Amino acid sequence: MNTTTNMSIESLRQEYLKGQITPDALIDSILEKCEGYQDYNIWTHLLSKQEIAPYIDALKNKKPEDYPLWGIPFAIKDNIDLAGIKTTAACPEFAFLPDSSAYVVSKLIEAGAIPIGKTNLDQFATGLNGTRSPYGPVKNSFKPDYISGGSSSGSSVAVALGLVSFSLGTDTAGSGRVPACFNNLVGTKPSIGLLSATGMLPACKSLDCMTIFSLNTDDANTVLSAAEGYDETDAYSRHNVYDNKPRHYGQNAQALKIGIVAKSDLNFFGSKEYEEAYWQSIDKIASNPNIELVEVDFSPFLQAAQLLYQGPWVAERYVAIENMIQTQPDAIHPAVRKIIEPGGSLTATDCFKAQYKLAALKTICDEILNSVDCLLTPTAGRPYTIQELLEEPIQYNNELGYYTNYMNLLDYSAVAFPTTFTSSGFPFGLTLVGNAMEDRKLLSIARRFHGESKLPLGTSDVKMNYPELATVQHSHSIDVMVCGAHLDGLPLNWQLKERNAQFKKATRTAPCYRMYALAGGPPFRPGLVLDEANGTHIECEIWSVPKQEFGSFVAGIPAPLGIGKVKLEDGSVVSGFICEPYGISDAKDITEFGGWRAYMKSL
Amino acid sequence: MNTTTNMSIESLRQEYLKGQITPDALIDSILEKCEGYQDYNIWTHLLSKQEIAPYIDALKNKKPEDYPLWGIPFAIKDNIDLAGIKTTAACPEFAFLPDSSAYVVSKLIEAGAIPIGKTNLDQFATGLNGTRSPYGPVKNSFKPDYISGGSSSGSSVAVALGLVSFSLGTDTAGSGRVPACFNNLVGTKPSIGLLSATGMLPACKSLDCMTIFSLNTDDANTVLSAAEGYDETDAYSRHNVYDNKPRHYGQNAQALKIGIVAKSDLNFFGSKEYEEAYWQSIDKIASNPNIELVEVDFSPFLQAAQLLYQGPWVAERYVAIENMIQTQPDAIHPAVRKIIEPGGSLTATDCFKAQYKLAALKTICDEILNSVDCLLTPTAGRPYTIQELLEEPIQYNNELGYYTNYMNLLDYSAVAFPTTFTSSGFPFGLTLVGNAMEDRKLLSIARRFHGESKLPLGTSDVKMNYPELATVQHSHSIDVMVCGAHLDGLPLNWQLKERNAQFKKATRTAPCYRMYALAGGPPFRPGLVLDEANGTHIECEIWSVPKQEFGSFVAGIPAPLGIGKVKLEDGSVVSGFICEPYGISDAKDITEFGGWRAYMKSL
Repeated sequence: MNTTTNMSIESLRQEYLKGQITPDALIDSILEKCEGYQDYNIWTHLLSKQEIAPYIDALKNKKPEDYPLWGIPFAIKDNIDLAGIKTTAACPEFAFLPDSSAYVVSKLIEAGAIPIGKTNLDQFATGLNGTRSPYGPVKNSFKPDYISGGSSSGSSVAVALGLVSFSLGTDTAGSGRVPACFNNLVGTKPSIGLLSATGMLPACKSLDCMTIFSLNTDDANTVLSAAEGYDETDAYSRHNVYDNKPRHYGQNAQALKIGIVAKSDLNFFGSKEYEEAYWQSIDKIASNPNIELVEVDFSPFLQAAQLLYQGPWVAERYVAIENMIQTQPDAIHPAVRKIIEPGGSLTATDCFKAQYKLAALKTICDEILNSVDCLLTPTAGRPYTIQELLEEPIQYNNELGYYTNYMNLLDYSAVAFPTTFTSSGFPFGLTLVGNAMEDRKLLSIARRFHGESKLPLGTSDVKMNYPELATVQHSHSIDVMVCGAHLDGLPLNWQLKERNAQFKKATRTAPCYRMYALAGGPPFRPGLVLDEANGTHIECEIWSVPKQEFGSFVAGIPAPLGIGKVKLEDGSVVSGFICEPYGISDAKDITEFGGWRAYMKSL
Repeated sequence: MNTTTNMSIESLRQEYLKGQITPDALIDSILEKCEGYQDYNIWTHLLSKQEIAPYIDALKNKKPEDYPLWGIPFAIKDNIDLAGIKTTAACPEFAFLPDSSAYVVSKLIEAGAIPIGKTNLDQFATGLNGTRSPYGPVKNSFKPDYISGGSSSGSSVAVALGLVSFSLGTDTAGSGRVPACFNNLVGTKPSIGLLSATGMLPACKSLDCMTIFSLNTDDANTVLSAAEGYDETDAYSRHNVYDNKPRHYGQNAQALKIGIVAKSDLNFFGSKEYEEAYWQSIDKIASNPNIELVEVDFSPFLQAAQLLYQGPWVAERYVAIENMIQTQPDAIHPAVRKIIEPGGSLTATDCFKAQYKLAALKTICDEILNSVDCLLTPTAGRPYTIQELLEEPIQYNNELGYYTNYMNLLDYSAVAFPTTFTSSGFPFGLTLVGNAMEDRKLLSIARRFHGESKLPLGTSDVKMNYPELATVQHSHSIDVMVCGAHLDGLPLNWQLKERNAQFKKATRTAPCYRMYALAGGPPFRPGLVLDEANGTHIECEIWSVPKQEFGSFVAGIPAPLGIGKVKLEDGSVVSGFICEPYGISDAKDITEFGGWRAYMKSL
């Protein structure tokens, strides 16, 4: 019997690499553990040991060190295909047997991950609560009489209970975030198109995305990197125009300006516990000296959110199950049917009018989002018992989407992460919101806040303790030290300004440089040369150049100058002008002037 | 009486700057000239001298040298607002009096341009032929019994006849391109959102764009630069993510690979004259040694085109005039009504299904477009007489959209330009197609081909003669010389590959470098140092790095290395690794090995 209690990917990985566990033993212990949670209704189909065996066998030809998910167990929401296992979407009458796995599932298996089961969901991924399923309501991992959140209900609870290390969900209205909040998990809702939708049953095909539930943000990054990639067979697949590296906003990282929901727009639907947990979480983040929280108008986001169920996008849900709803409407869950059926009678003019309205709202919301580094909102307004949801299936579900419904309509990325527990011990969390393709940035900021919270992982008693990372200055711009004709007001300064570079400060180099007046010109130019023994401070300026413009700036610098690294007075090292050796062989040493401006004045 | 025959912007500008003409005299001559073309049905409203006077007066406070369009007369398609003049959209019952001018019109006037009149169009911009108007069919500027093309019919003919220097049109299906083809003009169909749509009556709001008719591509660039800009009040306005500089693919510019329509997809609808003109134009372009023409599969573009009138986008046209079509349907032109009316009964599910189909087609078309520098197609398949269009108003109009209808659905940019005349003297032209925001690239390529054609401007006898321009190497990537650990297969090469850098060639430096093995490592690194007296060739590689990635590549290089300029064996100078002087002070001279690979093998 395996005694692993820390199911995080990195922890399991270390145990594998040290030979402390085997996939076979881990799977046995998981299947045994699952027996204790049968009444949680987590699975639509839990794989048998026999069904799992081929995945374990395939690992024998792979070295753990070469495969980032080697031997890592994961669960798959049952609207995503696993070859040879029925996809039900929580509607047995709809079920079909896929020949091949979803694009993302295949990539995860190829990376070494082991599928454990298909998870229960709000039928056709229509719901945010986890009770809309003929397989029974999924129980909350902390308080079994409470909802798990949905629609990715089973996927979240499986991770929280330590039955798998991570799981795949989907998210149209908030299905990858609300269940993360209610089960003390990180819920990564990637930008639409970052994870291929091939092999995923559509809810609203133009808005859906696959999501990742994990115990911490590092695991989310690991899974995202293994799962992402452009898929030409998915019309909504997109190239990641930024990069796919984890970014690290460490505690020493640059200041962040984060937008929070204006007080008048906050809504906890009567839950004092969640309201308290919210302010406690916000106050903790605000106490950090290099974080600025600013209230933003949340009403345009709420207006966009209204469009999801009150607008024509319901017609997409109708298209997704058109044959089913026309031939076997009674097989559909009553609450789901009530939502989807009207989608068949909306008009194309409704559709375009709503798309115009959304485009106008996006312009407004983008402006708000781009005025800060990211947004930070509650993930859900209040928890509900299963009984409450069964009694008020529509209204309470609508409330659950208050902070989430706008996200995919506006094409944003989001990461939900735990911040605290309520006084009665129910998990609470926040959601970071960014532009499309800012997924890594959000994960990095979430890592910082999640790390500071020192929360346990899922329902385990393992406290999260992120490893220290070298602080990487993350920025969409690059600081460059200039000390000659590029100084503010001098002849080549326009090359910075035309690239929208911003003046950051006037400073001096470390006391180890000499400066030479190079031959040629105008424009006249100096060469800066490192000389630890005989150097001194040289006056310079730091300009912040947009990253995508920095390349053309560098390419435009004629010999003997170039861009290398320069030490500043404060000990930091930045990109800046350097000079080839031949350039100074006949050049005049002007170090005594202390800088280019003083030298130029002397002429 | 003014005798100006060359109405191009640059020509008028020179005459103004030299004091050879005045705005007052020019406008008088234009208004007089207009009298001769009354039966051409060009205008819905030609401004009186009194109505034009305030625009001329406003120029008195502006210096011509400061305003790029100072005193330049232009026409406005009558679905675009000019303050104080009725906008009719060629439906008098629909007309309204706008208080303010369209965003773009205001910018042009601010830049010094003088509005002359509102031009006739296919009603509600629904048509490609120019006959669907209660103001009468607009006559072709070369052969008055032929159609002008539409829907921007009056705008094109006004420029071709020399009544204005340029004009504004609009384009949903091809309205900014087909009339350019039939009237020997350059028709610039900018990327959707590049020109604000504020003050422009929608046809299909999500697909429309404002366009520019001009006598040559330089004028198009001038107008585009004055007109473009993000407009936060237009939900479809977009930031230009590239740059707004004219690009110049001169005759000495880099080789171009251009996609042309596969022979089996060409259709001239029985017009031998247009078929001959097409092949004559293509053969001329193909005879250029640095241009490669490759046939591409045009069928996915044609499938996308089908969606415009057979799909749900017709519902957008319905939305645009919903009140009119419901209350005064008989006031609508019969052909226009026949097209738009069914848009009211399409469903939202039709709408989303078609959007899915379009997204899938776009994936295919993008791949084809991105396999070449741009596409080149006929602009229209054949000319028609006005009589033919009146007899077959739907079928012939559909034929007119064969090469144009897909463009805005797929979010591409396009420039139509003249290439020749048919044997019977009717104008013929081609269209260049690029991705969104590649407008300047297309204008630049069109400049080259239009310049080579030596055609007259519009209907005048002034031959186009573009001024020589310095050839600028245009590229979205930067070549970098690597000679150490970044060589293919060596430890730091991933820093290039992760940025999608492409290996270009293995080569050698000019015979003037020495190489040193630097202290530190792994990774071990060399320093390359220019030494004209004692240097030699050093083995190196050239990698092509995407421009926006080059900055982060440079920023990641530790001291004492950096990126400067390096001379290659073939005499060219490229960005490449340089080394600070201090780095080589204690380093081992390894020049004798001829390169880093040979040195590493020797260890």
